[in-house]
Amino acid sequence: LLGVAASATAQNADQLPSWNDGKAKQSIVAFVERVTAEGAAGFVPEAERVAVFDNDGTLWGEQPLYFQLLFALDRVKAMAPQHPEWKDKEPFASLLKGDVKAALAGGEPAIVDIIMTTHSGMTTEEFDQIVRTWITTAKHPKTGRLYTQMVYQPMLELLSYLRANGFKTFIVSGGGIDFMRPWTEKVYGIPPEQVVGSSGKTKFEMRDGTPVLMRLPEINFIDDKAGKPVGVHHHIGRRPIAAFGNSDGDLQMLQWTCSGPGPHFCLYVHHTDADREWAYDRDSSIGRLDKGLDEAGIMSWTVVDMKADWNKVFTSEP
Amino acid sequence: LLGVAASATAQNADQLPSWNDGKAKQSIVAFVERVTAEGAAGFVPEAERVAVFDNDGTLWGEQPLYFQLLFALDRVKAMAPQHPEWKDKEPFASLLKGDVKAALAGGEPAIVDIIMTTHSGMTTEEFDQIVRTWITTAKHPKTGRLYTQMVYQPMLELLSYLRANGFKTFIVSGGGIDFMRPWTEKVYGIPPEQVVGSSGKTKFEMRDGTPVLMRLPEINFIDDKAGKPVGVHHHIGRRPIAAFGNSDGDLQMLQWTCSGPGPHFCLYVHHTDADREWAYDRDSSIGRLDKGLDEAGIMSWTVVDMKADWNKVFTSEP
Ligand SMILES: [Ca+2]
Ligand SMILES: [Ca+2]
Repeated sequence: LLGVAASATAQNADQLPSWNDGKAKQSIVAFVERVTAEGAAGFVPEAERVAVFDNDGTLWGEQPLYFQLLFALDRVKAMAPQHPEWKDKEPFASLLKGDVKAALAGGEPAIVDIIMTTHSGMTTEEFDQIVRTWITTAKHPKTGRLYTQMVYQPMLELLSYLRANGFKTFIVSGGGIDFMRPWTEKVYGIPPEQVVGSSGKTKFEMRDGTPVLMRLPEINFIDDKAGKPVGVHHHIGRRPIAAFGNSDGDLQMLQWTCSGPGPHFCLYVHHTDADREWAYDRDSSIGRLDKGLDEAGIMSWTVVDMKADWNKVFTSEP
Repeated sequence: LLGVAASATAQNADQLPSWNDGKAKQSIVAFVERVTAEGAAGFVPEAERVAVFDNDGTLWGEQPLYFQLLFALDRVKAMAPQHPEWKDKEPFASLLKGDVKAALAGGEPAIVDIIMTTHSGMTTEEFDQIVRTWITTAKHPKTGRLYTQMVYQPMLELLSYLRANGFKTFIVSGGGIDFMRPWTEKVYGIPPEQVVGSSGKTKFEMRDGTPVLMRLPEINFIDDKAGKPVGVHHHIGRRPIAAFGNSDGDLQMLQWTCSGPGPHFCLYVHHTDADREWAYDRDSSIGRLDKGLDEAGIMSWTVVDMKADWNKVFTSEP
């Protein structure tokens, strides 16, 4: 019997080849084996094996700016010929001069302005097409790679490993739900109906006799911080048993997941590898991990040290 | 080859034993065979086989009042001892005297008041438990049966038939999302994450050091009429290829589904059987089917004549 268990462990471990053997990998495998062991005390029926993943900084990179913001900046440039008035209007004027820093100096209102302007005013299907074109052509400013090549290989393996063990995997991101859906199925194996995110309002209307959903310049829901468990409940309707994040924006989702009555698993990805990726945590304006790191220590959540735990970072690396 | 096709048709038809052979049943089977025929022009990959179902009047009864409203009325009675002030406050005073008609004379504001009062002020898990208790014990005022026994047998068969053919089945209801989720998996085989409905706002907070989601007395989303395609897009993120409803409240969802670029199927359940169920359409205040019936004629959507098309109505019948 011990032999069988050991062999099952070895087999499971093989499904995570980009993870170095260490506490993080061991804790993942131990959890999965616990909840899938039929007849044992920790067994969780398949229908309840819900795992939720943050996206930016957890499944793909998020530096030097959230990729969706880089998308929005590209959109501003593409839309500029139709908007001569932007020449004298911030934050667009600075953006068009190439001064991103000055444009974003306006803080959240400037960002909301850029997002609303670039993400509304078209049908849902038109926006879908705009995202599809961008995601298959735009290149990251530092690495020169497609953004989908900056997905973390170890996390892809983890998604597959969980699904192979009967988990349903969801994205729960502060990013835009409709910015992610056009490509998450192909890239992560996560279908649109399992993507939760921030959203603007949409409106059903007839356009030349054809029904369309128009994207309005109005916030519907912000899926971040205390909004994450709300988004999880609204979309999924049951409490996850495993949650994966990388910042304080995920803290409440991890708290919600890991205060459930049965077995549960919470994990933070800690960006510690300035050579292969980026190193940042408590003082970063993007993906700040401060309170979450303290809570992880108190609650004994798993913390992935990217530098030590991952032998490969991006899918696009050899 | 013709023999094989005919035999496949016969086999599929057998999965709908409560449906009499007629145009409605034939149109369902023809659609399913079309989208599942690999290599043929109408083939739809499994991931895109999304079917959406209205609930009240489509999957279970809705007379003499929406069952969720009957739930709310039961809750008012249960909560009354803690609310002595309701003695003098409408619509509660009339309800507690047993005069439902007088209570509902206040129209929509009275109904919203009753729903908000009975559906908020507790955690999501407390509400879940309240619904579970009610759904397994409360009896319908006319039939004396459990409400889950007033589910339509032909529609259960249809759900199973679609799933057996690779469809993912969703509920898209004007009813409360959290009122349905506690029992839809067991009764319909539809898990919580595939239920779309109306909702109130919830708020994440710590209660005695434990995270909870509190239900607030505030509307979040009304999943009815033009809200249905919006709810479909928000939760599912792709356009369904099949939609099933019974009232004008479903019209926009059917329009959205049946204006898609590929094969699509729209069906209205028409309540025509006053003996076995209820007969109502254009003039009913509950489940009004007026514009929808006209549109179904114009668009050649399938209309089920309950009396003629179903040889069995409720699951609880012999
Ligand atoms: Ca993040
Ligand atoms: Ca209905």
